[in-house]
Amino acid sequence: MIKIAVDCFGGDHSPDANIDGALLALAAFPDLSVILSGDEDKIKAHLATKKYDEKRLSILHAPEVIGCDEKPTDAIRLKKESSMMKAVRLLREDETVSGIVSTGSTGALVVAATLRIGRLSGVIRPAFCPIMPTMNGGVVGVCDSGANVDITPDYLQQYAIMGSLYMKKVYGMQDVRVALLNVGTEKEKGDELRKAAYALLSETPGIHFVGNMESRDLLSGKYDLVVCDGFAGNVLIKSTEGAAMEMLKKLKRDISSRLLYKLGALFMLKMFKDEKKFMDYRNYGGSVLLGTKKVVVKGHGSSNDVAVFKCIEQAYRMEVGALPTDIEASLAALPVKETAQSNA
Amino acid sequence: MIKIAVDCFGGDHSPDANIDGALLALAAFPDLSVILSGDEDKIKAHLATKKYDEKRLSILHAPEVIGCDEKPTDAIRLKKESSMMKAVRLLREDETVSGIVSTGSTGALVVAATLRIGRLSGVIRPAFCPIMPTMNGGVVGVCDSGANVDITPDYLQQYAIMGSLYMKKVYGMQDVRVALLNVGTEKEKGDELRKAAYALLSETPGIHFVGNMESRDLLSGKYDLVVCDGFAGNVLIKSTEGAAMEMLKKLKRDISSRLLYKLGALFMLKMFKDEKKFMDYRNYGGSVLLGTKKVVVKGHGSSNDVAVFKCIEQAYRMEVGALPTDIEASLAALPVKETAQSNA
Repeated sequence: MIKIAVDCFGGDHSPDANIDGALLALAAFPDLSVILSGDEDKIKAHLATKKYDEKRLSILHAPEVIGCDEKPTDAIRLKKESSMMKAVRLLREDETVSGIVSTGSTGALVVAATLRIGRLSGVIRPAFCPIMPTMNGGVVGVCDSGANVDITPDYLQQYAIMGSLYMKKVYGMQDVRVALLNVGTEKEKGDELRKAAYALLSETPGIHFVGNMESRDLLSGKYDLVVCDGFAGNVLIKSTEGAAMEMLKKLKRDISSRLLYKLGALFMLKMFKDEKKFMDYRNYGGSVLLGTKKVVVKGHGSSNDVAVFKCIEQAYRMEVGALPTDIEASLAALPVKETAQSNA
Repeated sequence: MIKIAVDCFGGDHSPDANIDGALLALAAFPDLSVILSGDEDKIKAHLATKKYDEKRLSILHAPEVIGCDEKPTDAIRLKKESSMMKAVRLLREDETVSGIVSTGSTGALVVAATLRIGRLSGVIRPAFCPIMPTMNGGVVGVCDSGANVDITPDYLQQYAIMGSLYMKKVYGMQDVRVALLNVGTEKEKGDELRKAAYALLSETPGIHFVGNMESRDLLSGKYDLVVCDGFAGNVLIKSTEGAAMEMLKKLKRDISSRLLYKLGALFMLKMFKDEKKFMDYRNYGGSVLLGTKKVVVKGHGSSNDVAVFKCIEQAYRMEVGALPTDIEASLAALPVKETAQSNA
């Protein structure tokens, strides 16, 4: 039985969307059990009319909620009775619980996961890996999308290793083509960080490094995993999503501006709906945090029930694939770095 | 009379597009004269059938062309007879020539402009400022989009000052709302560079700093100028353009997939054409290089005649607005920074 804790509070549509998402996951995976963390009365009230396998669902009462505006370090210290922190404590104390899914404060989740759940041996810092759709119907992972903004080439090497394993285990990819986000495709492009990372990635065993990627090619389908610092990753993800969504909004406005266009659009209602769905990040699950001892998935604050279900599915597949164990083993297998001393 | 040198070689559609763009500019601005740099025979052959004011056009013979794959520092040293380097030398030697427009190698142009034309007094490093369309019909500048990847907060302060003047002079903006590209809108977001830059921009006189901007809001119309390091700026511009264009391509493919959609699209042919035009960077001129002694505009390699015309228009308006002089004066007027010593 795989046990996942679901933080039921802190999202825009919580607790309803989170509870319903958990029930969808219970129905989908017979060897899954969920622990719903949050205000017991509210959770019970919502569950009252639902049908589900009661043996595989339990409630962890937590009266408090961490708000998105709270300073993460304060929140995890002061809000011990919050739905997020009680779930995190459960992960820490109960080794049979595999992971957590939350739609609450990103900052608090990163800090709590890093400090309370802890990093896997060898991991410098856990990093976020969200998923984007590609134009040929596949997906591409981006690691890191914002957990670490000040980094060194070693981080990028770890992102490549952790992300490759993740794309294999959760998306069934055989050969994960890893690219380094850069300002041009040529080897010598970029700042000092990128130049050093290019060299390091080129000689990293166990990954398939295909070189630099320009940001305009993120959705092209030519890459499976893009590694970058958290600042650039955040810009990449948000400007890609933002531009695609703005373009669809503009189309909608432009269609409304002329009767002729409105007439034409009548034939294409389903298509426009599909396009919007295509770019809606909620359909691709959450950002997983790679490098922690237990699996951690951060769903978007605006997650609906399907989005929460997808997050739980990600956590479930990471655990089924023994991702944490494999990350640890892969990092341990890296050749020991030659230091200035060993060169001497 | 305002004199602009036009590098006629090095672009995908050069020299024809470059020459035709120059002729469009001559027709538009009666006090403009152009110097066409490049192979004289080829330029003359193209001009043979054209009508234009011959007194305002001259040719600077240059038999060589700098390729896009050449290393910039080598190219400017070895290709002294190239269309770009001869134009740059003219700018250096003839003080009546105000600027250069080129669709050739970006790297060579930056290096040549910085080393051969020179920085304005007080400028740390010249920076690129391309323009993007906003959803409410306006434009937004992004500085820097790739000239400098390793920077300090002082650079961002200079980008804000130079970019604000540019948006005023060339786009007629009265109040330029300057934002700092960051991973969140809150003041304390980002890495060390961004935190320090936020503080510095907040206390910079003469600019209207409105705080942090998330990349998804670039096209929103809420900002007039975004300042960022060249790495993030490059990611921002290219992923925004890339995602919008990919979205349109996807629409096109999806429309082709069903007869019903094709039928609807017949009503909307003009609209789809307009959308494509809206996101086509060639319609917004080139990336101007801010901070050099003379005006420098880099048009996209794929520029057609209208795109080259827009680049020349940018150079012309920068010179009419005395942008270089004003940048120098504004930087000189900055309060002298308190150093550790002056605090002591």
